[in-house]
Amino acid sequence: MTSPAPAPPAAAAAQSPPPRIGLAGLATMGQNLALNIAEKGFPISVYNRTAAKVDSTLSRAAAEGALPVLGHRDPRDFVLSLARPRTVVLLVQAGPAVDATIDALCGEEGARNGPSLMPGGDFQAYSNIKDILEKAAAQTEDGPCVTFVGPGGAGNFVKMVHNGIEYGDMQLIAEAYDVLHRVGGLSNSEIADVFAEWNKGELESFLVEITADIFTVADPLEGSTGGALVDKILDKTGMKGTGKWTVQQAAELAVAAPTIAASLDGRYLSGLKDERVAAASVLEEEGMPVGLLEKINVDKKVLVDRVRQALYSSKVCSYAQGMNLLRAKSVEQGWNLNLAELSRIWKGGCIIRARFLDRIKKAYDRNPELANLIVDREFAREMVQRQGAWRWVVARAVEAGISTPGMSASLSYFDTYRCNRLPANLIQAQRDLFGAHTYERIDRPGSFHTEWSKLAREGK
Amino acid sequence: MTSPAPAPPAAAAAQSPPPRIGLAGLATMGQNLALNIAEKGFPISVYNRTAAKVDSTLSRAAAEGALPVLGHRDPRDFVLSLARPRTVVLLVQAGPAVDATIDALCGEEGARNGPSLMPGGDFQAYSNIKDILEKAAAQTEDGPCVTFVGPGGAGNFVKMVHNGIEYGDMQLIAEAYDVLHRVGGLSNSEIADVFAEWNKGELESFLVEITADIFTVADPLEGSTGGALVDKILDKTGMKGTGKWTVQQAAELAVAAPTIAASLDGRYLSGLKDERVAAASVLEEEGMPVGLLEKINVDKKVLVDRVRQALYSSKVCSYAQGMNLLRAKSVEQGWNLNLAELSRIWKGGCIIRARFLDRIKKAYDRNPELANLIVDREFAREMVQRQGAWRWVVARAVEAGISTPGMSASLSYFDTYRCNRLPANLIQAQRDLFGAHTYERIDRPGSFHTEWSKLAREGK
Repeated sequence: MTSPAPAPPAAAAAQSPPPRIGLAGLATMGQNLALNIAEKGFPISVYNRTAAKVDSTLSRAAAEGALPVLGHRDPRDFVLSLARPRTVVLLVQAGPAVDATIDALCGEEGARNGPSLMPGGDFQAYSNIKDILEKAAAQTEDGPCVTFVGPGGAGNFVKMVHNGIEYGDMQLIAEAYDVLHRVGGLSNSEIADVFAEWNKGELESFLVEITADIFTVADPLEGSTGGALVDKILDKTGMKGTGKWTVQQAAELAVAAPTIAASLDGRYLSGLKDERVAAASVLEEEGMPVGLLEKINVDKKVLVDRVRQALYSSKVCSYAQGMNLLRAKSVEQGWNLNLAELSRIWKGGCIIRARFLDRIKKAYDRNPELANLIVDREFAREMVQRQGAWRWVVARAVEAGISTPGMSASLSYFDTYRCNRLPANLIQAQRDLFGAHTYERIDRPGSFHTEWSKLAREGK
Repeated sequence: MTSPAPAPPAAAAAQSPPPRIGLAGLATMGQNLALNIAEKGFPISVYNRTAAKVDSTLSRAAAEGALPVLGHRDPRDFVLSLARPRTVVLLVQAGPAVDATIDALCGEEGARNGPSLMPGGDFQAYSNIKDILEKAAAQTEDGPCVTFVGPGGAGNFVKMVHNGIEYGDMQLIAEAYDVLHRVGGLSNSEIADVFAEWNKGELESFLVEITADIFTVADPLEGSTGGALVDKILDKTGMKGTGKWTVQQAAELAVAAPTIAASLDGRYLSGLKDERVAAASVLEEEGMPVGLLEKINVDKKVLVDRVRQALYSSKVCSYAQGMNLLRAKSVEQGWNLNLAELSRIWKGGCIIRARFLDRIKKAYDRNPELANLIVDREFAREMVQRQGAWRWVVARAVEAGISTPGMSASLSYFDTYRCNRLPANLIQAQRDLFGAHTYERIDRPGSFHTEWSKLAREGK
């Protein structure tokens, strides 16, 4: 299918033992992962359908220190070049599912410098290249960010939930920025400083770190009016599908994941820019201000401190949802997922990497059967300490008309989960009235049905 | 399969013209629908695999006025008994999808006394029995609650969204009850009066009406401690799947439906009764009260008035989500759904029937392309008038620790949808930084990518 090309430069390594690993699919992610593995001292065979990508990979391997990469243009040669058992990492880009899974490898930088790897499927295949994966993965004080996740589609599922959590983190950070900016009037450079400061404490994470960086970047475009680049970006967010699947899976598994759902909805609504502008205008004509509905008088430092606590508490709820989604799928599929171990491999090499994940790991180490992160003693204590500030931020946003769907959904989740008596009794009465769905009682076992309408008529 | 049974009493109608409609499946819903149709003057043939149900249908037909119902135990006889073109209404109960669709016929009472019918599929099949369906359907001042919804699965989809909206209504009513009870200390009989009063105004609806009834019903169980029955019901809510599908379809179609999602999550979390009790206890040990976190001093009448406004505003947002979900699916499938007409057929004979639906119908009559109910002039005005009370209720609930996920999600939806500048610019910057996903600018067309980390380093 490709035009005739010069002989592949595989001959150079003819005397060495054959590589134990091959990689097919040399787009950005594949190239970087191949170079990463080669750099760790594992010779690797690579193949791509379009030969130019093989050449560019070999050029990069030479430029970055003659890394032991063997290029192939023929798939048969490629496979035969490998030591038995032949192990091939396939990085194919056809189809949105695979796209997203690959995207999940946490960005090109991660692939080059050490990603978090979440391999599932055949345990023997994993064992054959375990040492290679452990070297290629991001390294933390707890070891390499790789583990055998589980059989079947466990790896993909875990990666999907990682991305759902990532959606939640990004939404919550955006809300924190919005409150700091609109309530506190913080400038971009002040916001950069706030996030940089937060990155030294309990919120230390890749996403908080890059947020601090983003607010320092000036608009580089010639002829623009200057100022921070972030202010010039249109408020429409793209997405690639994993957030959607996370929400759909949560619904399927009967797991409440409102923070993740709110972040997905936030992206959907962000896309309706024209509708939003029109709505602001229609409502303004009916007497509603476009800006803040109430001025909030608060010291900047106090505001920053409260927003930090609101962000942290909301984040705990979001991770609680993600972990419980993993647990539910694991039970359904019999995967036996190890939540502590999954928290560990997310500590480095992926978008949600954070100091915080070590705390989550420890919570599941203490109690692998933990029903919810919120009821782990340490997290429970933190939530109790922070809830006052969290409620303050959400209530003020509600009054001022600032939308904080992620923080609000997290707080509703917290208040629902900690409620020992919900008004669900009424819903169950309604269902029994119109559909004879029956109900349980608080004072004796069994299912009950009542002729509500008849009794109500008789009582009048 | 069944034991020998006496000959079916079909002979009685041998001289009349053959029925134009048959009904197979004589469980509760089927029996009632058959009797309803017969009562309207349309002879009907009925069939059931288990013969006893045929007998009981015929007995009921006799008892309720010798309605022209022809019973059959042999499916071939049943089909041959019908006039051509032979039209059979199938009410089968196998499988959760069909279950839920049937459930969607709005309860047994509706089937007997006039349901809202949402038929889709083959237009000719609909036309053949249009007159029968129009007589059997619930009647309103706008005509019978039936219309040809659209081709293919349009009828099922519309019914599914109806149920999603129903979930939202029930959750919002439960939250209103919780706030009245916990904040205002209203007794059950006061709550009954409040809902009865609300049912005379803008909230007039089947669900508000039955809620008023429910609070008047005393516990009928011998040996119980007395009081209202609703207080004896366990706060765990069941469900049959349509809410879940609505949420999954909303995610699939990129439509934000947070109120409906919150009502589904509310049901899921209600099911975790033991976990909730345990969470309340763990948090209490860490210093958090199980009851209200703050006492709210407010006059009962003022509270009731504000909660009514919060309920109404939240409901508008929930219906806006449902209608936009219908629109999105219609566009995707080319169904050409008529949103005004769908609002009209929901005005009677179904769970969400309400005066309010007439207002929605008129909004779509005014503008069939209306982007969102919120921007219809009349609804916009109402939202602006009510938002102060709505924000007050949500903010107080947030401060007091009462979970109002449906009202909060509705308010977040409102504040997001009316926001002409969301913090989504930051999310898009983050995505461009770690995944080179590019962004758009506010000041010029095109897609842009920035080396954020590099520029941030250089700027330091």
